[in-house]
Amino acid sequence: MSKVLIVGAGSVGSVVTQKCAQVPQVFSDIVLASRTESKCKAIAAQIDQPIHTAQVDADNVSDLISLLRREKPKLVINVALPYQDLSIMDACLAAGAHYLDTANYEPPDTARFEYRWQWDYQKRFVDAGLTALLGSGFDPGATNIFTAYLNKHYFDEIHELDIIDVNGGDHGYPFATNFNPEINIREVSAACRHWENGAFVTTPPLSKMTLYTCPEGIGTFTLFRMYHEELESLTKHYPSLQRAQFWMSFSANYLKHLEVLENVGLTGIEPINYRGQSIVPIQFLAHLLPDPSTLGPRTRGKTCIGCIVRGSKGGKERLMHIYNVCDHQACYREVQSQAIAYTTGVPAMIGAKMILEGTWCEAGVWNVEQYNPDPFMEDMNRYGLPWQLAELDPAFQLEFA
Amino acid sequence: MSKVLIVGAGSVGSVVTQKCAQVPQVFSDIVLASRTESKCKAIAAQIDQPIHTAQVDADNVSDLISLLRREKPKLVINVALPYQDLSIMDACLAAGAHYLDTANYEPPDTARFEYRWQWDYQKRFVDAGLTALLGSGFDPGATNIFTAYLNKHYFDEIHELDIIDVNGGDHGYPFATNFNPEINIREVSAACRHWENGAFVTTPPLSKMTLYTCPEGIGTFTLFRMYHEELESLTKHYPSLQRAQFWMSFSANYLKHLEVLENVGLTGIEPINYRGQSIVPIQFLAHLLPDPSTLGPRTRGKTCIGCIVRGSKGGKERLMHIYNVCDHQACYREVQSQAIAYTTGVPAMIGAKMILEGTWCEAGVWNVEQYNPDPFMEDMNRYGLPWQLAELDPAFQLEFA
Repeated sequence: MSKVLIVGAGSVGSVVTQKCAQVPQVFSDIVLASRTESKCKAIAAQIDQPIHTAQVDADNVSDLISLLRREKPKLVINVALPYQDLSIMDACLAAGAHYLDTANYEPPDTARFEYRWQWDYQKRFVDAGLTALLGSGFDPGATNIFTAYLNKHYFDEIHELDIIDVNGGDHGYPFATNFNPEINIREVSAACRHWENGAFVTTPPLSKMTLYTCPEGIGTFTLFRMYHEELESLTKHYPSLQRAQFWMSFSANYLKHLEVLENVGLTGIEPINYRGQSIVPIQFLAHLLPDPSTLGPRTRGKTCIGCIVRGSKGGKERLMHIYNVCDHQACYREVQSQAIAYTTGVPAMIGAKMILEGTWCEAGVWNVEQYNPDPFMEDMNRYGLPWQLAELDPAFQLEFA
Repeated sequence: MSKVLIVGAGSVGSVVTQKCAQVPQVFSDIVLASRTESKCKAIAAQIDQPIHTAQVDADNVSDLISLLRREKPKLVINVALPYQDLSIMDACLAAGAHYLDTANYEPPDTARFEYRWQWDYQKRFVDAGLTALLGSGFDPGATNIFTAYLNKHYFDEIHELDIIDVNGGDHGYPFATNFNPEINIREVSAACRHWENGAFVTTPPLSKMTLYTCPEGIGTFTLFRMYHEELESLTKHYPSLQRAQFWMSFSANYLKHLEVLENVGLTGIEPINYRGQSIVPIQFLAHLLPDPSTLGPRTRGKTCIGCIVRGSKGGKERLMHIYNVCDHQACYREVQSQAIAYTTGVPAMIGAKMILEGTWCEAGVWNVEQYNPDPFMEDMNRYGLPWQLAELDPAFQLEFA
């Protein structure tokens, strides 16, 4: 019986709020806060249980502290923007609340995300006797836990990790992004980094591709290798990994739009002077694109996100695949959001449940793979993200095109 | 020996100024005015003869009248924006100056250009004893005169007109437009209209294409049918025309960029509210794209613009092709601008010369094809736009893809 404060009323904030409301024995009291309180109220209106709402500027630490001191939540679930992770962590320390997020801190002015800034809070959280759980979405989040689960139960040692994120959904727009366009495009247009023989190797954005056929008849997709933040924590926590790569599916149409928008300078993150006004091109672009929260009713098809892990067990090579399949329309029927927001929001609720139930609650700053994956994996099956496990022929390789 | 005022210091304004300066026996005194006088001074600095410069807001009639009363030019050459045609015509009437432009009036808030607004000035120019010469660029302009010339010398009656505008130049940028991006994109994304059996027929933008091989080894290009303003005046002045079409070459890469920019709403001409600021998306896009005036030194290749006219002579069907080929780098060497600005600016100078020499100077509002084409055609050969004439096999047809 605990009070939780959810910061961020976008698509993921909506899913987290609804999923928390489904587990009242843990989340007895829910406050949803955002810069725009009307968005919180709109979400609250969709839910039978009472949800309290509040206005807060998540960039402003003293504003956050006032809210936390007034509401006294046991835990803050941060599903605001990655730029705001540190201000929310600061406020949790000042006000004595646990902390959870789904994406690591990213400075607003450089397209570079890394855990360093948040890992640096380790001593402060230990000293305060508080838990900060980082990256408890799907990827990062479920993919880290999948890796930990396979490592624990199926391998003596893991050597190769391929995280595969396929979105087979179609929203019917010529171009739209499934989450905050600014964050999405910054991520996709960044240089690729993958782990190889003990170090990160940098290659040009989207320069390596492979054709991949999903299980369960979902289809064949073009995957592109890119950097994703869980590679940083997983290669640190599993030093036996010789190679770790992240792959995401993109359609030719998506890439065509991205190429053109880059060519004309619309993905730029540096402000430009336009008739005396300072405008960040990618933010102006984001303003023009469909709001991701409106994609839910339009999106059909499935996601398939998981990990292919190669390693050894009893002296023999072994290859395992673990994944979740999520149907956009089924998600929409349940929580009025498509699968991208659903697969991020449900693990945030489960991570919060792990902390509040005392299952994962050591003081300090933790990535999800540092805890026992088993109770989290059980809850994934229970709360809408059932996973499948398959042993593959070790001869299988992703083919480079 | 006359004074001329040139309004507009873009690429075309630069070419017109330089070409007028090459004919001092007609243009004895040249004033170049623009919203940004420093652009005028930069052009003036490239020219040996003295060019006077001035600051003027071409949207502001009283500002224009003050300038005209101060400078007392015999003729105003308008190479500013099409939105400004009417304010400049008003000022010419008030101050007693002849008027010439290269593109017809277009209201800022609708992507629709037509001559109606300017033709309505007919009585006022007649009463004032002043000449307004409309559309004295290349297309409109030279293409109208080509049609008039063929009609006069090679046909009893003309029946079909295909105006073909090929730009075989390459500027090396992923995407840039050869003249004002806003005007260019508005024109290309507008619905197509062509003349067929006594009426204009509307079809979707760029929905009809043909492969066309230029003369003189310039190459084979994909042409798209689109509306262009000379179709309005030519079908009015040559009522024997049963069909009239305008074709422009676009590369697959140009069209890809245009499609994406339209898809994301960046070609919109309606202002949107962005963080409390009113921004017209296509103007923001224009701000991001390379300035057309910087393309000159980079552009290589040739333009080939002309008319294919079908009609009858002595009871027999006849097909004639008349065209100009212009080399981007040769233009740049002569006037530091590429061929798109050159082919527009030179006919503006020649039209101005026709008025000031008294060759074309009847009071009223005129399209160029309403005057005798012969002296203009002679001056095209003399001042840098030599034309070629070829009789084609009447069996030739543009193939619809």
